[in-house]
Amino acid sequence: MQLPANEIFDNPDCIKCARCVEPRIIMNDILQELKSIVGERASASPSERCCYASDASQIAGLPDFVVRPMNTKEVSLILRLCHDQIIPITARGAGTGLAGGCSPVKGGIVLDMSGMNRILEIDIENQLVIVEPGVVAEKLNSALKPHGLFFPPDPGSMAMCTIGGMISYNSSGMRSVKYGTVRNYVLDLEVVLADGQVIHTGRKVLKSSAGYDLTRLFVGSEGTLGIITRAGLKIAPLPKTRKLVLAFFDEAETAGQAVIRVFSRGITPSACEILDKTTLQVLKLCDPMLAIAEEGDLILFEVDGTEGSTNEAAIQIFETCQPLARSVRIVTGQQMQDIWAARRLVGAAISRLDPKKTRIYMGEDVGVPIKKIPALIKKVQQIAAKIDIPAMKYGHIGDGNLHVALFIDVMDDEQWNKLFLAADKIHRAALELGGTVSSEHGIGLARAEYLPEQMGLEAFSVMQSIKNALDPQGILNPGKMGL
Amino acid sequence: MQLPANEIFDNPDCIKCARCVEPRIIMNDILQELKSIVGERASASPSERCCYASDASQIAGLPDFVVRPMNTKEVSLILRLCHDQIIPITARGAGTGLAGGCSPVKGGIVLDMSGMNRILEIDIENQLVIVEPGVVAEKLNSALKPHGLFFPPDPGSMAMCTIGGMISYNSSGMRSVKYGTVRNYVLDLEVVLADGQVIHTGRKVLKSSAGYDLTRLFVGSEGTLGIITRAGLKIAPLPKTRKLVLAFFDEAETAGQAVIRVFSRGITPSACEILDKTTLQVLKLCDPMLAIAEEGDLILFEVDGTEGSTNEAAIQIFETCQPLARSVRIVTGQQMQDIWAARRLVGAAISRLDPKKTRIYMGEDVGVPIKKIPALIKKVQQIAAKIDIPAMKYGHIGDGNLHVALFIDVMDDEQWNKLFLAADKIHRAALELGGTVSSEHGIGLARAEYLPEQMGLEAFSVMQSIKNALDPQGILNPGKMGL
Repeated sequence: MQLPANEIFDNPDCIKCARCVEPRIIMNDILQELKSIVGERASASPSERCCYASDASQIAGLPDFVVRPMNTKEVSLILRLCHDQIIPITARGAGTGLAGGCSPVKGGIVLDMSGMNRILEIDIENQLVIVEPGVVAEKLNSALKPHGLFFPPDPGSMAMCTIGGMISYNSSGMRSVKYGTVRNYVLDLEVVLADGQVIHTGRKVLKSSAGYDLTRLFVGSEGTLGIITRAGLKIAPLPKTRKLVLAFFDEAETAGQAVIRVFSRGITPSACEILDKTTLQVLKLCDPMLAIAEEGDLILFEVDGTEGSTNEAAIQIFETCQPLARSVRIVTGQQMQDIWAARRLVGAAISRLDPKKTRIYMGEDVGVPIKKIPALIKKVQQIAAKIDIPAMKYGHIGDGNLHVALFIDVMDDEQWNKLFLAADKIHRAALELGGTVSSEHGIGLARAEYLPEQMGLEAFSVMQSIKNALDPQGILNPGKMGL
Repeated sequence: MQLPANEIFDNPDCIKCARCVEPRIIMNDILQELKSIVGERASASPSERCCYASDASQIAGLPDFVVRPMNTKEVSLILRLCHDQIIPITARGAGTGLAGGCSPVKGGIVLDMSGMNRILEIDIENQLVIVEPGVVAEKLNSALKPHGLFFPPDPGSMAMCTIGGMISYNSSGMRSVKYGTVRNYVLDLEVVLADGQVIHTGRKVLKSSAGYDLTRLFVGSEGTLGIITRAGLKIAPLPKTRKLVLAFFDEAETAGQAVIRVFSRGITPSACEILDKTTLQVLKLCDPMLAIAEEGDLILFEVDGTEGSTNEAAIQIFETCQPLARSVRIVTGQQMQDIWAARRLVGAAISRLDPKKTRIYMGEDVGVPIKKIPALIKKVQQIAAKIDIPAMKYGHIGDGNLHVALFIDVMDDEQWNKLFLAADKIHRAALELGGTVSSEHGIGLARAEYLPEQMGLEAFSVMQSIKNALDPQGILNPGKMGL
């Protein structure tokens, strides 16, 4: 299919590339070159390009091409082409990101990695798996379960999101409070560099002190330093038992204080979630049969391990919360599973509270030192009240990570303005409290403006110099992370 | 004190620096500049320089100056001077390293960080500490113990080694099999860059996905990218109970198989150590009163947690080992503590077996995938037998990390040749088995020649380009890690 050569320039933000400098290299030449690598898995059709314009955020940019590689060699050849012709290239997994991370805002190629989705090896004795980046997190865990093992990082989107995306954004979820983030589980990455060279960042060993930690340099680098084509991941034994403590509080601030007390006692829950009053309503909407009669701001403390240790920890948490809480109880079995299932839907289901309004993912992933959680909750309440915008708070309070859900009528410009203002103030509040603008969703384009402030200009400049060293032409996911 | 200008050139390997290019900048000028920053804490006295020539390995190089900074500002000013004058600078903690990491093999300045040894903050509620790099690991743990907390990484030298050194080499020890290495505990580093600029790599939050992981880039970078002047570290609750399972085997290979079986059952011990027959003799020499009558190759499995969970895990390990072992038993309390105390001395005490011989730290820190442990043990036995050199094996078998102790009469040139040959073959055996030449001691100069092979030339070249980006003049710990 022949497209007009000038279509490539339809993105006003496009980076200065060979296609401008040498007009003879037009769209069709590039498409033909891509097809010579992957056949019909390269496309420039407008409808396909539209499908790949954005992730789950509101940030979009039309790619010029969509390419679906099936192996490392193809990725390497594609990158060599991009490098030679200075074509922007943005890798994409399942597109569940919330920061515009895989939205091709500078045009060029979207590299859909979801076809590289094989679990290549489950190595029980070495406690590791080798996977391609397109493997969906839940599928990996389904494959591991019969062996009594699991891959602990558990983003809310784990039924859809891919391992490659999780690595690129250092994803985590409810259980990172005990098990850590993706960063803690990557042993080795196969990465295709900007010029098409293929490297391994580690070895299949559980422990190594040999050379710079290239593995973790690529983890969380959002596709700006290379394209991940394979990963060696550490896995862990599935805990034998779980128990859930539900503690209801009159005020979200008091709930935050209870969390601090639990951690100060040396208890490490396997999850520690807050759902404020309004979010609790949503939880009940998610599952109207859910056996929660209580009201208030709810903290869910999960503990896991052996029968004895979970019992002991659950009782300690119960006793710690009781003096501060309206009510506390311990649940197990099916009831616990129902609550978790409903909890996992909360983020998406929030808009059911008011069907005219849509949740917009902005200011939704701030994190602070645990001690500052009550102050952050209070600050968010003040911001929402002052700007007059509905704000619900839920999230991984045990990590200091608060998900704020702002929702608006997307047809109303004034509400958009309120949203921008509120999100900005929430980000700045987190920074003022010594926190981060993103605990687990990443920077992408959504939070890029805050990164130099959060890191400090000198540290940000170190990041820039690493980017320049590894991707001197700036073809890898350009425009993201402020790079 | 005036020194002859040419003394600076006494190291044949010295890097080409301003002192050669501009002869007017002589030793004394530099010394005066250093004194203007730190006063009498800068020295060029031959005796002091000799004291700082090496770490605990046999690798040495005479520094031109010894400087003892007391704060970040001084470090920054010193680095600015080094940057302007192109003076090599090597940071040093306690000098307990085993790879020549802090041996100033290109001359220049040794920066003794041991004076910056304050624990600045113990923040129970946020579960973190802020420390200066000169804090000794055991002192930190003594300060944390009353709060029921600890900093888990536990190198054998923890009574002496400093946090700064541990971070620079991503140190660990017996308990990393459960708790991970230093890499897992660093939240934020204050680092002085090559040009004297000061950055922070993170924030005091437990979880963040914001920007490249500069923290872990500096962890394990052996002082080649910057000088660490402060660290924010995550701490963990001290486990309530520990139990120790002692399993004795006829063959070290069978012991390796037992370890694989334990891990395959989903048990995660808090330590999993091997001591081969000869090393067991040393253990008994370390403490002649030690209540171990058994002989054989010994595996020590430690489990920790609550009373119930440790009981359960200890019994599972007992049952798993029994079919393969000569004998198995579970110990607790004082007896367990005595065994651990003796175990910690093994590395240093090995030469007591033959007073004429000295242990040389070469080929001593290899690691392989757990499944390959029996093959590695066998290979090391073959190498030692063929070359006719005594080789004892002990170490953190649960991580795949085998410490091989080679010892020789250091006055005998032929034995030195055997040692070099054996160490080389051990390193290559680990690489052939998909392993690493260093699990926890680092690369330094001792293992630098193997790093390009282990990483692959392309990945090594990525490492070089990062080094060039951050330290373009190559002043930071030059000559190490093959850089």
